[in-house]
Amino acid sequence: MESKAKWQKLRSRAHEIIFEADTFWGKLFDVVLLIAILLSVVAVMLETVNGIRIEYGTFLVKIEWFFTILFTIEYIARLLSVKKPLKYATSFFGIIDLLSILPSYIGLFISGAQAFMILRSIRLLRVFRVLKMVRFLGEASELSRALRASRPKITVFVGGVFIMVVILGTLMYVIENGENGFTSIPKSIYWAVVTLTTVGYGDIAPQTPLGQAVATFIMILGYGIIAVPTGIVTSEMASNREKASINTISCPSCGAEGHRDDAIHCFRCGAPLHV
Amino acid sequence: MESKAKWQKLRSRAHEIIFEADTFWGKLFDVVLLIAILLSVVAVMLETVNGIRIEYGTFLVKIEWFFTILFTIEYIARLLSVKKPLKYATSFFGIIDLLSILPSYIGLFISGAQAFMILRSIRLLRVFRVLKMVRFLGEASELSRALRASRPKITVFVGGVFIMVVILGTLMYVIENGENGFTSIPKSIYWAVVTLTTVGYGDIAPQTPLGQAVATFIMILGYGIIAVPTGIVTSEMASNREKASINTISCPSCGAEGHRDDAIHCFRCGAPLHV
Amino acid sequence: MESKAKWQKLRSRAHEIIFEADTFWGKLFDVVLLIAILLSVVAVMLETVNGIRIEYGTFLVKIEWFFTILFTIEYIARLLSVKKPLKYATSFFGIIDLLSILPSYIGLFISGAQAFMILRSIRLLRVFRVLKMVRFLGEASELSRALRASRPKITVFVGGVFIMVVILGTLMYVIENGENGFTSIPKSIYWAVVTLTTVGYGDIAPQTPLGQAVATFIMILGYGIIAVPTGIVTSEMASNREKASINTISCPSCGAEGHRDDAIHCFRCGAPLHV
Amino acid sequence: MESKAKWQKLRSRAHEIIFEADTFWGKLFDVVLLIAILLSVVAVMLETVNGIRIEYGTFLVKIEWFFTILFTIEYIARLLSVKKPLKYATSFFGIIDLLSILPSYIGLFISGAQAFMILRSIRLLRVFRVLKMVRFLGEASELSRALRASRPKITVFVGGVFIMVVILGTLMYVIENGENGFTSIPKSIYWAVVTLTTVGYGDIAPQTPLGQAVATFIMILGYGIIAVPTGIVTSEMASNREKASINTISCPSCGAEGHRDDAIHCFRCGAPLHV
Repeated sequence: MESKAKWQKLRSRAHEIIFEADTFWGKLFDVVLLIAILLSVVAVMLETVNGIRIEYGTFLVKIEWFFTILFTIEYIARLLSVKKPLKYATSFFGIIDLLSILPSYIGLFISGAQAFMILRSIRLLRVFRVLKMVRFLGEASELSRALRASRPKITVFVGGVFIMVVILGTLMYVIENGENGFTSIPKSIYWAVVTLTTVGYGDIAPQTPLGQAVATFIMILGYGIIAVPTGIVTSEMASNREKASINTISCPSCGAEGHRDDAIHCFRCGAPLHV
Repeated sequence: MESKAKWQKLRSRAHEIIFEADTFWGKLFDVVLLIAILLSVVAVMLETVNGIRIEYGTFLVKIEWFFTILFTIEYIARLLSVKKPLKYATSFFGIIDLLSILPSYIGLFISGAQAFMILRSIRLLRVFRVLKMVRFLGEASELSRALRASRPKITVFVGGVFIMVVILGTLMYVIENGENGFTSIPKSIYWAVVTLTTVGYGDIAPQTPLGQAVATFIMILGYGIIAVPTGIVTSEMASNREKASINTISCPSCGAEGHRDDAIHCFRCGAPLHV
Repeated sequence: MESKAKWQKLRSRAHEIIFEADTFWGKLFDVVLLIAILLSVVAVMLETVNGIRIEYGTFLVKIEWFFTILFTIEYIARLLSVKKPLKYATSFFGIIDLLSILPSYIGLFISGAQAFMILRSIRLLRVFRVLKMVRFLGEASELSRALRASRPKITVFVGGVFIMVVILGTLMYVIENGENGFTSIPKSIYWAVVTLTTVGYGDIAPQTPLGQAVATFIMILGYGIIAVPTGIVTSEMASNREKASINTISCPSCGAEGHRDDAIHCFRCGAPLHV
Repeated sequence: MESKAKWQKLRSRAHEIIFEADTFWGKLFDVVLLIAILLSVVAVMLETVNGIRIEYGTFLVKIEWFFTILFTIEYIARLLSVKKPLKYATSFFGIIDLLSILPSYIGLFISGAQAFMILRSIRLLRVFRVLKMVRFLGEASELSRALRASRPKITVFVGGVFIMVVILGTLMYVIENGENGFTSIPKSIYWAVVTLTTVGYGDIAPQTPLGQAVATFIMILGYGIIAVPTGIVTSEMASNREKASINTISCPSCGAEGHRDDAIHCFRCGAPLHV
């Protein structure tokens, strides 16, 4: 009995350190973890640079295994310290935590899998917990709320752009007659996207006068319709802001609405708002 | 007499399946159709890729003819199932439906026409009917309303950009003295559009110091005036939204609509709005 | 005496045709003029295309002289038909009209001057008079009002961008050590502008790892600060719109403000607004 | 005693001329200084252009030393003319003033340091003092206030973009299999930034069909999410503007400020605002 209570206390303490960031040890754990993630991500990156791999290759592999084992221990500790391990394992961060250690083990059998260790960079999102968490998460949720509210409009927009790009790409394929890089319709569509989004690599560029005229049209089109997603998101954000700054209280005396959030008295009749 | 009634009932049933998407069979028809369109568009694209054409060319041609005949039958069925076939044939989707089968037949006589089969990708717009149609069409109409309302401002803007580009292109032709790719005024104008819209292929780039100085000016100009269409569309959308903050109460006395949310009296006749 | 009255009547009639676009002949004159300008601009452009100059060169030169003489006659007619010729000659369109004929004559003595005939494309701005003039000019003035109101903010912004670009360009010159195209500070500044404005020709691109890291930073910076001019112009336009739709009348009975432009009665107390 | 008073008077007079721009001599000093800064910046730039260095090299070096000595004298004069020299020396402009003369002296010992003389271009910010200072500084502070208020949202955004770019870059490294310029993960991340920000140099471009498909996705993503920083800054600016539509009346009873323009009673204590 006593050992169970002791175990529960230990787990609750472990939970506090591993999952929260309000106590000193909890914060320290998260900061150390973030540095470890950053170092391991940098190690994975550097290993792909030729000059560095030749000189420090074996050292980098050792570092990667060191972090992989560290993260494996951490993953097991997380599983043990929560009451419902399955719930954590299937949560967003639980899956990411698993995905960030799996590639190393899979890489033992299938070469090339190590590159996916880079997925552990997603774990860096935990940084928002160490910083003034609530505030930043609030901003993130406000951002994602605005983006979610804009989704139907953005779906219509992306759908329209998709069809536009297919037709313009095909048109250019016909005009340039399969030459100057426009060797197939998919490649021409790729070019149309490169042009419409104003990226403009220049690896494929029209050479015929008619092709350049159509390209000019596509560019001005792309320059103009970039205004559409911007307009959607901006008006959504501005609207969130307005809703946030004026409350919905109705004056109990005269019924006036649209009070400032910090108003105590009705701005029209002067009656107290909160009786 | 009876056969006519039977025919009308059949046509009404066919109309329900082919043109609407509220019943099970109507929805199924539309989903199958969308998949068929997608597959046929992909087939047309793949046929232009060299490696694929050599190996699967005859197979792809067979697929194209299969879908063309399918869409031809569908087109005839549509004509038969509506009361006024001419009205459908001259509607937006009616013309697109015809244009998406014609190229295959024309291709028998004129080679290269098949590429225009890609026009059938426009038919994918029907997807909005299968999804929560009303909501997405509402978003689309709100988008197009904002764009329509911005048209005069955008016309002025595009007109100004057009003249700007002609003059800047000519200026660069004179500065670069017909060299470094600036071989003619139309080509220089093409370069000016590529630069002003921040696409920047790099197939033509100024080499003289003066030319690079002017290019610098054009880039900063383009970077700045991208704000103009964005500002136009955004303020138009925000204004649509504001109109929404005007309530839908209709004056009980004179019927005027569009009252401010905090209005107590009708702004037109002065009668109290809330009796 | 009589001849003077006749002359004045003739001049008033000529003024109506040449300067206005409300009568049938006035509109016809403007439309013909616009077509002539367009044709002459196209002729100037085509003359610089090598293949076309060789085949149609002498023909194009004849066309150019035809239009130059036509515009010279028109310019003299404009001078004669206004009461104060000097005022017209020094007005915006008066100067443009002169500049669009001068290059042809100067080109007789200095070769290359003909390219500046392209300045006559500015005359195409007259198109707004033929279309629903008032409406489009209103839009143009609204646009230019928003841009003028944003000028101080935009000056600060452009000043900041200028200093930023000078420092970043120098930094890259030091990092890339005068190689990979970064051969001098002015050229590196040119590259910094190309990158910051997201144009990205690719004629100069960093090759050293550190250079690419700094380039990454500049790109994200440019991607972010494009929001600033957009924000300036958009908020200026939205504010214009708000001012335009709500008038400044104060209710003579209760003093309420912020009435809709078409309000007849106060929305708060119901008293008539215009006594 | 008298000499001390004389010295103080002299210092106060010097301060007026050197630090302020309201008197004739103060303005003249600032204008001359700005021209000197501009000339010296241009001289530093030109010295790095090969053709010019060979011909005018020794002349440019002389000019640089002339300005360096001038600015050194000016720096000492500034230190002498303020009451608390340390406070000036550690202020933003004090540090910049020092940094703009140091490189010349350091360049005597370490070659290459001269390039950092370009830091003196920051001193050009003083131009806002000569122009209608207050107004422009007001605009600058309004701009920087909007940017500061947007910081948490922008931090979340940049953090998300950073992780996105790392993952997409790695993905492309795996897809293109280390070829076509995607030689390492850091280089692929560089490419991802070039693409996402719509810069698009084209020095690295995907060649495999799958790579081009992913590139297409990244481009449309980048085209879309450019709306996010724009939306953030714009709604922040519009909100600043809205705060302006709140009046400046201070409650005669409790002193509360920031009342709605149509408020009759104080929102905090309920006392009538207009007695």
